[in-house]
Amino acid sequence: MKTIRTLLGASATALTLAFIATGNAQAQAPAAPAAAAPLMTEKKVFSLPSYTTFGGKTIKNVKVGYETYGTLNAKGDNAIFVPHFYTGTSHAAGKYKAADAAAGYWDVIIGAGKPIDTDKFFVISADTLSNLNTKDPMVTTTGPSSINADTGKPYGMSFPVIAMRDSVAVHKALVDSLGVKKLYAVMGASGGSLQTVEWTVLYPDFVDRAIPVISPGLSISPWAVALLDIWVAPIKADPKWNNGDYYATGEPLDGIALALKLVTITTRHWGWVEKTFGYKPADATKPPVEAIGNRFASEDALTKAGIARAVTTDANNYIYMAKANQLFNVEDEAAKIKAKFLFLPAQSDLVFPPEMAKKAAEKLRGLGKSADVFVIEGDGGHLDGVLAIAKASDVIRAFLAK
Amino acid sequence: MKTIRTLLGASATALTLAFIATGNAQAQAPAAPAAAAPLMTEKKVFSLPSYTTFGGKTIKNVKVGYETYGTLNAKGDNAIFVPHFYTGTSHAAGKYKAADAAAGYWDVIIGAGKPIDTDKFFVISADTLSNLNTKDPMVTTTGPSSINADTGKPYGMSFPVIAMRDSVAVHKALVDSLGVKKLYAVMGASGGSLQTVEWTVLYPDFVDRAIPVISPGLSISPWAVALLDIWVAPIKADPKWNNGDYYATGEPLDGIALALKLVTITTRHWGWVEKTFGYKPADATKPPVEAIGNRFASEDALTKAGIARAVTTDANNYIYMAKANQLFNVEDEAAKIKAKFLFLPAQSDLVFPPEMAKKAAEKLRGLGKSADVFVIEGDGGHLDGVLAIAKASDVIRAFLAK
Repeated sequence: MKTIRTLLGASATALTLAFIATGNAQAQAPAAPAAAAPLMTEKKVFSLPSYTTFGGKTIKNVKVGYETYGTLNAKGDNAIFVPHFYTGTSHAAGKYKAADAAAGYWDVIIGAGKPIDTDKFFVISADTLSNLNTKDPMVTTTGPSSINADTGKPYGMSFPVIAMRDSVAVHKALVDSLGVKKLYAVMGASGGSLQTVEWTVLYPDFVDRAIPVISPGLSISPWAVALLDIWVAPIKADPKWNNGDYYATGEPLDGIALALKLVTITTRHWGWVEKTFGYKPADATKPPVEAIGNRFASEDALTKAGIARAVTTDANNYIYMAKANQLFNVEDEAAKIKAKFLFLPAQSDLVFPPEMAKKAAEKLRGLGKSADVFVIEGDGGHLDGVLAIAKASDVIRAFLAK
Repeated sequence: MKTIRTLLGASATALTLAFIATGNAQAQAPAAPAAAAPLMTEKKVFSLPSYTTFGGKTIKNVKVGYETYGTLNAKGDNAIFVPHFYTGTSHAAGKYKAADAAAGYWDVIIGAGKPIDTDKFFVISADTLSNLNTKDPMVTTTGPSSINADTGKPYGMSFPVIAMRDSVAVHKALVDSLGVKKLYAVMGASGGSLQTVEWTVLYPDFVDRAIPVISPGLSISPWAVALLDIWVAPIKADPKWNNGDYYATGEPLDGIALALKLVTITTRHWGWVEKTFGYKPADATKPPVEAIGNRFASEDALTKAGIARAVTTDANNYIYMAKANQLFNVEDEAAKIKAKFLFLPAQSDLVFPPEMAKKAAEKLRGLGKSADVFVIEGDGGHLDGVLAIAKASDVIRAFLAK
C-alpha cells in the first residue's frame, strides 16, 4: 500500500479539518479548560490474520490503526470507544507531537477534566475498514487500496462489500485484545454514529451507553442513500478512475476533489456559508460579472476545500465506505438493544436532520429503552456534530454520570 | 443552432417535469376545476436585431420563444408576465396539441377560472437568454449555443456574460411589442423569481404586483452561489466539455446528466425522497449488499432523472444561466421598487429556504413597501414552488384582487 501513497506530513487530515472548521473557533472555545496540559497520544496498529465479513467473504491480513487516551482500570470497565465519521480517522483527540498544528477532532471534549474525562475513562478510537485517508501516514486501514496477498496487487473493486458492522466487529476484536471487559460508552459522529448503533445491536451485553452524534437513527435514510451516491458520482465520472483500476496509471484526483467539494457543501448550511464567505468575489480584481471564469468567494473556497481534502483520500476506499453507510439498517434488530441512548443531532444538519434522531429515540422508548435527545444549536450544518460538539459538553458529562 | 440539435418530440421538457413530479399528483389536484376546457397555446418567436447587455456587450440577432394565454384588453393593462425557472421554458400553461402528454408547468393556476384567470388576464411567458433546453424544439433562445453571425460557428464560451436582468430587458421589448402598457403582475419561480424582482427594479412604473415564488429575496445567497457552482462542476469535469468547444466533437452528455442529477436532489427534500422511493433496492434481484454496483431505488431514480433531463440541455447554456443566477443582487436598488410584493417560499426548500424571502419582505416593509409572505407547506423541497403551487391558489387569487 505504501507504494501508492504520496507521503505527506502527519497532520494532513488535521489541517484539512482545520480548514473546514473556518468560523467555528468560537464555538469550540468554551469547554477547553484554560490551563489543561495537552493530551499526547501515539498511533498503534491492530492486526487480525483474517476476518470474515457479515457477507461471508474472508479478508486476510486485516490491519487498522488506533489510538488510546487515559488508562484502563483493573476491572476493564471504564473504556469508551469513539468510532470515526466518513472522512475521518482515529485521531479523535490529543497530539502526536507538541508541535502538531492541530489536535484530534474532538479534543475539546476528550481529555483530563473534559466531558470524556481521561482521568476517569480509557478512550479508544480506531480507523475503520476502508478508511478514506490511505495517504495520511498516520492512518492504517484495510480496504480496496490494500494489497491482495493472493495477487500482490491492490484489490480495487474486487474487494468484498463491507458494512459498517464489519468495522465494528474488527474493533470488537481490538477492544478485547486490550483487556476491555465492557464498554462504558460508545460515542461517534455521522458515520461514527452508525457504528455506535451497530455496537449496541451486535454486542448488547458489552455496551452500557451509546451517544450517536449527527445520526440518522436506526437506519440510513433514502435521502442519505442518494446523497452518498452523489458524493461518489464525480469519482466514477473521472476517466482516471478506470473502474477502480488506477493504482498503476494515476489516481482520479480531480474526481476525488469534486467529490469532497460536494461532501463539504452538503455537510454545511446556508447560514455558515453566508457568515463565512459572504457575497463577494474570490479576487477583488476579477469581478464575476466581467468574465465567465471569474468566481465568487464561496465557490472558490469550497473548490479549494475539495482539493485540500483530496490529498489524503483513496478513491476506491471512498466508494466502499459510501456503500457501507448506505447499507446501515438495524430497524428490525432494535429490540436487542440494552444500552442507554443519548442522541446529539445538530439543528442545521441537512444530511441527518434532527427529526431522524428524534424518530429513532421515540422508537427506542416505544420498545422500553432509555433514549434522550439533545439538539446542538447553530448554523454550521452536519459538521456542527464534529466542530461544535462543545455545546453538548454538559449533557455528555451528565449522561456519562447516569 | 438547429444543426446541433437532436430533434425530439415537442413534449420532452414536459415529460421530464412529469418525471420529477412523481408523488406530487395529489398536491396539484385541488385547484383544477373538474370540467374546465383545456387551455391551448402556440409557440411564437420574438426577435431583436441586436441587444446590448448591461455589461456593455452587443449580441446580434437575438431571438426568444414565447407563448400567451388570454387576451390583452384595450387599455393594455391586464397583462401578467411569467418568467421561468433555471431548467424551465416558457411553456407555463396549456397544451400545443390536445394529445400532449402534459400541460405547461403551472397549468394548475393559469387558465379560465384559475387563480391567474385567463378570462381576465393576458398572460405572457418567454424563454430567457441562454435557456438550457436548446434541444427542445419548442424552445427558442440566444446563448452560447447560438451561431455567432461573425464567425458562422456557435459562440461557446466567447458569448458575453449575461445577467438575469438581460433576459428581463429583452422580455420588456417583447411585452412592449405586444402593446402592453403596464404589467398587472409578474410571477416567477426560482430563477423566475429573480427575474420577477428585476422587473420591479428596472421598470418600477411598469409593474404593479410581484409574486416571487421560491425566491432568495433581493439577492442570491452565498449558499446558492456555491450550489450553482456545484451544479456546473460535473459539466466542466467532463473531458467532452472541452472548454465549451464541443459542438463539432460531441456534447458532454455524462457531465450534463450528473449535473442535472445534482439539481434534482438539491431541489428536493429528504421527506420527498423517503416517501417516493423508500429504502429498497432498485432491482429486487440485485440486493445492494451483494455487489458494489447493486443500487438502491433512490440513487437509481435520481440517476435516471439526470439522464432524462439531460436530453434537451445544452452544456454551455447551462453554465451561462448558472452565472446569471449568481450575479443576481439588487439589495442596493430596493428603494426604487413600487410594486406590491407577495413572496411564496416553500417550507422544505433547501435552495432558497423561507427565511430568505422573509428577510427580503422585512427589508421592503422597512423601506415603506408592501410585502406579504405565504409559505407553501410540504416536504417536496424547492420544487414545491413549481409542483405544489396549487396550495397557494387562494392567496394568489386574493393578491391579484388587491
